[in-house]
Amino acid sequence: MMDDNRAPVPLVQCFRIKAAEPSLEDNTADIDRLKHAVETVLRKEGLTDRHVLVPYARTTDVAAGFRSAGFSGYVLVNILPAVIEITDFSREMPPVIPAVALDLGTTHLEATLLNLRTGKRIAGGHRENRQIEFGSDILTRIHHAVPSRKGFAKTCELTGLKQLQQSVIASVNDLIADLAAQGGIPENDIRAISVAGNTTMVHLFMGLNPYHICREPYTPLVNEPDPCHAAELGINIFSMAPVWVLPSIGSYFGGDLVAGILASGIDETDETCMLIDVGTNAEVVLGNKDWLIACAGAAGPALEGGVAKMGMRAAPGAVESIVIDTGEWTLGYKTIEDCPPVGICGSGLIDLVAQLYLSRIIDFRGKFRDRIVAKSSRHRHFLQKRLCRDAGGLFFVIAFPEETGNGHAVILSQTDMDALMRSKAAMYAILTTLVAQVGVGFEELHKIYVAGAFGKNIDPHHAVILGMLPDLPLATYESIGNSSLMGAELVLQSDNHRRRCRKIRYIVTYLELNVNQEFMIRFSGARFIPHTEPSLFPSVPLFQEEIDDISG
Amino acid sequence: MMDDNRAPVPLVQCFRIKAAEPSLEDNTADIDRLKHAVETVLRKEGLTDRHVLVPYARTTDVAAGFRSAGFSGYVLVNILPAVIEITDFSREMPPVIPAVALDLGTTHLEATLLNLRTGKRIAGGHRENRQIEFGSDILTRIHHAVPSRKGFAKTCELTGLKQLQQSVIASVNDLIADLAAQGGIPENDIRAISVAGNTTMVHLFMGLNPYHICREPYTPLVNEPDPCHAAELGINIFSMAPVWVLPSIGSYFGGDLVAGILASGIDETDETCMLIDVGTNAEVVLGNKDWLIACAGAAGPALEGGVAKMGMRAAPGAVESIVIDTGEWTLGYKTIEDCPPVGICGSGLIDLVAQLYLSRIIDFRGKFRDRIVAKSSRHRHFLQKRLCRDAGGLFFVIAFPEETGNGHAVILSQTDMDALMRSKAAMYAILTTLVAQVGVGFEELHKIYVAGAFGKNIDPHHAVILGMLPDLPLATYESIGNSSLMGAELVLQSDNHRRRCRKIRYIVTYLELNVNQEFMIRFSGARFIPHTEPSLFPSVPLFQEEIDDISG
Repeated sequence: MMDDNRAPVPLVQCFRIKAAEPSLEDNTADIDRLKHAVETVLRKEGLTDRHVLVPYARTTDVAAGFRSAGFSGYVLVNILPAVIEITDFSREMPPVIPAVALDLGTTHLEATLLNLRTGKRIAGGHRENRQIEFGSDILTRIHHAVPSRKGFAKTCELTGLKQLQQSVIASVNDLIADLAAQGGIPENDIRAISVAGNTTMVHLFMGLNPYHICREPYTPLVNEPDPCHAAELGINIFSMAPVWVLPSIGSYFGGDLVAGILASGIDETDETCMLIDVGTNAEVVLGNKDWLIACAGAAGPALEGGVAKMGMRAAPGAVESIVIDTGEWTLGYKTIEDCPPVGICGSGLIDLVAQLYLSRIIDFRGKFRDRIVAKSSRHRHFLQKRLCRDAGGLFFVIAFPEETGNGHAVILSQTDMDALMRSKAAMYAILTTLVAQVGVGFEELHKIYVAGAFGKNIDPHHAVILGMLPDLPLATYESIGNSSLMGAELVLQSDNHRRRCRKIRYIVTYLELNVNQEFMIRFSGARFIPHTEPSLFPSVPLFQEEIDDISG
Repeated sequence: MMDDNRAPVPLVQCFRIKAAEPSLEDNTADIDRLKHAVETVLRKEGLTDRHVLVPYARTTDVAAGFRSAGFSGYVLVNILPAVIEITDFSREMPPVIPAVALDLGTTHLEATLLNLRTGKRIAGGHRENRQIEFGSDILTRIHHAVPSRKGFAKTCELTGLKQLQQSVIASVNDLIADLAAQGGIPENDIRAISVAGNTTMVHLFMGLNPYHICREPYTPLVNEPDPCHAAELGINIFSMAPVWVLPSIGSYFGGDLVAGILASGIDETDETCMLIDVGTNAEVVLGNKDWLIACAGAAGPALEGGVAKMGMRAAPGAVESIVIDTGEWTLGYKTIEDCPPVGICGSGLIDLVAQLYLSRIIDFRGKFRDRIVAKSSRHRHFLQKRLCRDAGGLFFVIAFPEETGNGHAVILSQTDMDALMRSKAAMYAILTTLVAQVGVGFEELHKIYVAGAFGKNIDPHHAVILGMLPDLPLATYESIGNSSLMGAELVLQSDNHRRRCRKIRYIVTYLELNVNQEFMIRFSGARFIPHTEPSLFPSVPLFQEEIDDISG
């Protein structure tokens, strides 16, 4: 049951115990008999550092189960950091020990149902976070939770917070109901839940005052909450299921990124690696098993729904990749699940802007060129059809109304492109500031893991052309998908992963970019395609004529 | 904070901590900051074996208190066996940390309110256990709790048990309200409760199935319940106040007697001592710091209300001591609080029967003599007035209707005396069986502690005359009052006493008298005053003529 060289210890475990039946010679009490038998097994397995206890609320049912099974059978325990809680007893080994891993996003919740006996996924799903009705961004929600001067507010005074908590818990319960239905498992049989979210979302989920998260010196109420039970939060699963919240490192470095570090494994590698997670923020971690340095910045918004006019998250109907054939002058795109297009997600935007650059429809500043000399009739036809102008200026048509899922064209405006340019500049500036901080060259990085909605189907080649990611061999890049959810799955499955979270919390150094002068200089330099210093991107073609156009 | 050579560690403790204010350089979360500061203090004090945590339900208020106090002030913690729980924080040291010690009797509850800062009593009180409406004895209550075949019953199936639990909790809450009013302290400020009761009462108090307690092999559901919180049991004090239930050793050896051992200190003495606790049962423990042996038997009922017709517990109006002057032939009595008499308590009964024996109104079998030759006119007058006869036979008048508090005479019938004779015989048989079991002579005993209602005002001289207690120098006997309550007070005050409970649980050997042949033989021999073998009681006068009367 120890992780070191033994089988992993999941958050909830079931194992066989066999106790003697009570007799006049040995008539100790049922619960004491059970605890003794459990302690004996745990001792054999080397798990002797934690007290074994039966929570009051489970005493009657655990004792009834133990006795009706004839004092031998299968005990269910929560393996918590301080104690081991006995929560159930049955005659037969339950075929499945279901547990939920939850990625608690600001706009979106994603979850899987795992069988802790095997580590296998039983079901998966996602839901909108209903908190959106109280505001789409973190700051609005913090303000709704704690309107003003409630820095010291006590439980009874926080009605806005209570609303937000109830709202997200309702969303989580809906999602759990989906998973349970998919898996054909009663919700009450779900024995644990792990939660990875940003620091504010964790506070709102737990009903904890987030007032100081967004106020200098940016102090959360809690970074590493002690595990509580599902019933305490109103989560509709087994009442005594542990709620294991991945710890945060600070206000701007949440459990979602700790989960990402777990999922990427950079806290355990000898070689220095990097993790880039882009959601609402871009969060970047650099390091190896000996040290980790992290920072975060606003590099994400243009890549997600809400900021870019046509932007949307990676959902069915989102254009996720685009190719412009500059011989035939045709445009091909692929949407998620091949639905008619309704918008464009992060990876599609990056593809598009890189292709627009390579096809010289935009210049190195990310501006539509309005004096393009057509090189063929096909070329002219393409430009006439797709590069249009309205009162707001030039825009590019990706899909015409007749092709789309909602009868509206999918377009890219100059405004949206400007936002993307800022984001890509911020991203590159974050990455260079971070490596400079520790004196590591990009070429020394063994791997760059790209996570988040941003990472799902991104083509690193296109991100490099934009100058968003450094110009490295493409094999350096590895997309790892929703690493927040993966990390949440990992902590369910092994005590070792749960211990890694604590280690990560203590070794990560956080680099504050808001007060970093160099970052601002680097940001300015990165606002061109690929960069003001093209030698940093030897693989990206330069179009001298355009530079002449502008400077001339 | 360790007990060994340091100040005792109460169950709830308040100590000063001082943390740095958050800054951009150190902006860790409030709760993590607090836990770190608490751990630092505990480490200095050597208390490093337990995890420090903040229970979910207290997180908001603890954090609010910590912040509004400016990150320095007084933290309140529950010192539990497995963990240390932070439950409150305040700027100033609270002047009082109130805690309730409860003696959870079958018929009667007695409690004190202590200040854990000083160990001093603030208030004291008692109440009837309202469970009496469901039956006066343990067996009736067990049957009411779990009517039949509910040996495996789960939480939802135990309505009788639920009734009994609610009933005793209501009594406890009434008693706590009394104490709080007396002490001028809001109930919600009471930070802990300890509970000493017999095994069945503890089960009923906690709502745990007592079905197997009274069925072979007499197995409780739990002997050592893990601490829970007041709110879980519906006790009207601070919601997160720990409920510390003194552990039982078995079905017939409850936490009340473990409390008695604590109070007497026989688990820590070099010399062998004895503890006699008479409530509904007589419970006896023999031993020293190296070993303890215990047994229990039905020697109590005659000494308490319910069995003897005029018997009552030691309450106002109970005749607690009696003297018969055989020169003047007058009878004097003393009642508790000097109220007009309404009944007779255990110590009064023992006094009375011993005096009746010495004044030769009863014979050595404990029977009223109906052919007494008066030796004076005063003697004749005394007998005529007080030794009466009705359809049920002879009876003795202690107080006449005009003297009493309720207009009814206080009398002793032959039936009541027979019950007392059985009890005293059982008591002596228990004591002799126990010492014989370990090969110790009564004369080797350093002390005999007499506890319980029985012990409050007992005159050991009279108990020796009856042959109830062995004929030892009177200095051997020491009345220690309600040792169950005293033990409950001790565990509130020191971790060391709480650890002693665990040690006691493991070293006590229990001698089962129901299956003991020798006990039955000894019981028969002890059914005379003082004994069939008078040489065992050299200090007790013998009246040969009466023996002749009967045998002749």
